Amino acid sequence: MENFLRKAKEASRVISTLSPKIKNQILLAMADSLEKNFQDILSANAKDMTVGRKDGLMQSLLDRLFLDENRIKSMSKGIREIASLKEPVGRVLEGWINKDNLKIEKVSIPIGVIGVIYESRPNVTSDTAALCFKSGNVCILKGGKEAKHSNEAIAKILEQVLKEHDLPMEAIMLLPDYSREGVSKLIKMDKYVDLIIPRGGEALIKYISSNSTVPVIKHDKGLCHTYIDKDADFDKAVNISVNAKVQRPGVCNAMETLLVDKEIYKEILPLLKERFDEHGTKLRGCSECCEVIDIKKATEKDFDTEYLDNILSIKVVDGLDEAIEHIQKYSSNHSESIITQNYTVAEEFLNRVDSSCVYVNASTRFTDGGEFGFGAEVGISTSKLHSRGPMGINDLTTYKYKIYGNGQIRE
Amino acid sequence: MENFLRKAKEASRVISTLSPKIKNQILLAMADSLEKNFQDILSANAKDMTVGRKDGLMQSLLDRLFLDENRIKSMSKGIREIASLKEPVGRVLEGWINKDNLKIEKVSIPIGVIGVIYESRPNVTSDTAALCFKSGNVCILKGGKEAKHSNEAIAKILEQVLKEHDLPMEAIMLLPDYSREGVSKLIKMDKYVDLIIPRGGEALIKYISSNSTVPVIKHDKGLCHTYIDKDADFDKAVNISVNAKVQRPGVCNAMETLLVDKEIYKEILPLLKERFDEHGTKLRGCSECCEVIDIKKATEKDFDTEYLDNILSIKVVDGLDEAIEHIQKYSSNHSESIITQNYTVAEEFLNRVDSSCVYVNASTRFTDGGEFGFGAEVGISTSKLHSRGPMGINDLTTYKYKIYGNGQIRE
Repeated sequence: MENFLRKAKEASRVISTLSPKIKNQILLAMADSLEKNFQDILSANAKDMTVGRKDGLMQSLLDRLFLDENRIKSMSKGIREIASLKEPVGRVLEGWINKDNLKIEKVSIPIGVIGVIYESRPNVTSDTAALCFKSGNVCILKGGKEAKHSNEAIAKILEQVLKEHDLPMEAIMLLPDYSREGVSKLIKMDKYVDLIIPRGGEALIKYISSNSTVPVIKHDKGLCHTYIDKDADFDKAVNISVNAKVQRPGVCNAMETLLVDKEIYKEILPLLKERFDEHGTKLRGCSECCEVIDIKKATEKDFDTEYLDNILSIKVVDGLDEAIEHIQKYSSNHSESIITQNYTVAEEFLNRVDSSCVYVNASTRFTDGGEFGFGAEVGISTSKLHSRGPMGINDLTTYKYKIYGNGQIRE
Repeated sequence: MENFLRKAKEASRVISTLSPKIKNQILLAMADSLEKNFQDILSANAKDMTVGRKDGLMQSLLDRLFLDENRIKSMSKGIREIASLKEPVGRVLEGWINKDNLKIEKVSIPIGVIGVIYESRPNVTSDTAALCFKSGNVCILKGGKEAKHSNEAIAKILEQVLKEHDLPMEAIMLLPDYSREGVSKLIKMDKYVDLIIPRGGEALIKYISSNSTVPVIKHDKGLCHTYIDKDADFDKAVNISVNAKVQRPGVCNAMETLLVDKEIYKEILPLLKERFDEHGTKLRGCSECCEVIDIKKATEKDFDTEYLDNILSIKVVDGLDEAIEHIQKYSSNHSESIITQNYTVAEEFLNRVDSSCVYVNASTRFTDGGEFGFGAEVGISTSKLHSRGPMGINDLTTYKYKIYGNGQIRE
C-alpha cells in the first residue's frame, strides 16, 4: 500500500502542473475511449450483476449498478462536460502589494492526492476521476464492492489513456485493497494522501472521521428542514414543501422534516395533506398535527431520521426561535429552507441557521452542483471547513501564496 | 467537560450574530480593562515566575513568560488593533444568479467553537481571544502550564467584560482541565468543537492530528528553504539569505537550509560565509560545500532539522530540479524562496513548490500576518486545507450559501 501511495504522490507532481489544454485533450480522449470500449465495460458489469443477483442485492441497488450502452454514453458526456469547464487551477483569488512592496498573490492550486470512498453507481468512478484530473489532483477511488468489476474496467480504460499520453497511470487508480482494511490503511497515510472524501453510509463516515489522520471532508446524510413561517405565501409553501419531499425522495437534498408555525398550522396542514396524499407521501406528525389531520404520530426518533423515502415528519413550532432550535438540534448541516414573505424573518433565518445551504422561498432540492451552475460535483459536503455544500472542481483546489520580491529583507 | 463544551456551543450561537459595532465596543472595553487591572495580572504572573524558577525553566522561556506593565499595555494595543480591522463576517465572497433565477450568495460566517492549544507567552491568550471574538467565534484556550496563573488572570478580566455586556462568559474560556488528558478529551468532542488549532511542539501536533475527531489546522514547524539559482543577483542572494537566517533565528519563518546551484557555489559560498561569520552563524554543509569553505559537515539529519537557532545547513544542488526535489522531501510546507533573475526559472519554482508561501527574491521572514497586512494572526498554518500560511481573522471564518428564491421548485 505504501509503495502504491508513494507513486500516487509522485504522479501528483506531474498532474498538478499540466496545462489546461493537455488536461482537456486527455479528458476528451477518455470520453471517446469509454465509448469505443463499451463492450469491455458491459461484460465486466454483467459479472457484477450476476454476483449481485446471487448475493440477493435489492432491486434498487441492482438498478443503480446496471450499465448499458446509453449509460456509458452518458458517462462520456459527463466527462466532456467536465472538460469544457473553466480551468480551476491558477485562479488568482486575491492579490495585493504589502508595505514593503512585495506583490502577494493568493493562487488556487490542486490539493494533491485525494481518496474518494463511495458506493454502488459505476458512473461515479468516471465522474470523480474526471473532476479530480481536471483540477490537477490524483485520485484514489474506492467504490462499492458490488461494482468492483465495472469500476476496474472503467479505471483500466482511463489509465490506458494516461499511458498513451505518457502520463503516470497512478494519477487515476482504484484502491488496490478493496476491503475495510484497505480503507483503514488509506486513511492513516497522511504522508501521501492530502484529503479523504467519504460518501455514503453514516457508519462508514463516522468510522473514517474517527480514525483518519488525513483531513476529511464528509459527504454525510442530508436531514433537511423546511420551515413554513406564519407570513408564508400558502401556495408557495405547499408547492415548495411537496417538491422538496416528493420530487426525488431518495436523495440527500430532499426534505425530511417540515416545521410549521403554530399561528397557521390549522389552516395549512389540511392543504398540505391533500397535496401530499396525491403523491402517496406517508406523513408523521407531532400531537398538534394529529389534532388537525389524521396522520401517524411522530416519535422523537422520526425527527432524527433521514428517511430517503417518501415519508415526512411534521412538527408545529412556536415561531422562528423554536424552528431554529429544532434545526440546530437535528439538522445535518446540509440544506434548510424558510417559506415567508416577511423580510426580517427571512434574513434572520438566513443569518442564524448555519447549514451549508440556507434558502428562502425555494426547494432544498436545488442543493446540487448542476443546479448551482458548477457543471458537475464530487458530492455535497456537510463538513464545516474548506468546502461546504455542492463541491465542484474549484472546491477540489486549495491555494498558496506566491510572493514576488526584488531583494526585500525584513528589518 | 461535556457540559462545559455544550455551553461553549450555545455561546457561539450568540457571539456569531453580534453586530460589528458591539464586538468592537467590547474589544475596546477588554483592552481598557486589561490596563486597568494590570496589578491582578502582574501578581498572577509573579506566581508563574516563582514556580518557573523553582522548576528550573530555561531563561529564554522565563523571558517569554515574564510580564510587566509595558507588556500588558502592548497586549491592550494588540486588542485595539484587532478591533480596528475590517469586519470578517458577512463578506459576500461570490454571488450569482442560477438558471432558475435563484440568487446564490456565498457569505463568510464564523467557524463556531475553536480550541487553540499553544505554549508559554501569555500575550497569545489575549491576542487569540480577541481574534476569535472579532471573527464571531467562541474560543477554548489551552496555554502552557507554566503560564497558568497569568492566563487565568487575563481570561478572568476578559470574561468579566463579556459579563458586563450581558454576553455569555463561555465565549472566551480556558480549558478547565489543563492536563494532557484535558486535551485528549477536547479533541474528541466533534459534537461541540468545530476546529482545533495546535501551535507548538511536533510531538503535541502529531498526537493531536492522529487522535482528533475534530478538524485540525496545524501550526507546525517551519523547515524553510532558500535556493540560490545560477542566475541569482549575488548581492540580493547574500542579503536575503543572511536576513532569512539571522534576523530572528528562533522563529518558524527563519530559513533552516540554503540550497546553492552547483554552477555558482564556488563563487558564492565564500561571500556567504564571510557575511554569516559576522553574525556568528554556525554553518554545516554537504561535501561539495566543505571543499570550498571550512565548515562542519552536514548529516542527513541536519537537513531534516528545524534548528530554531543560528545554525544553517547548506547543500549544493544540480539546478532547479534537484532543489525542488530536496524541498519536496524535507520541507514542512511553510515558506521557501528562490533567488534568481531568470523569469522562467522563477515562475517554475513558484508553480512547482507547493508550500504555503513561495517567494522570489525575498526573505522567508515575511511569512507573518503583520507583514502580509492581516493586522494580526492566530499563527502560521502548515496544513494544506482550509487555511494556509499566516491565519488572520478572515481565515477564522468559513462560509455558507444563502439562496434567495421566489417560489422556485425543481423540475
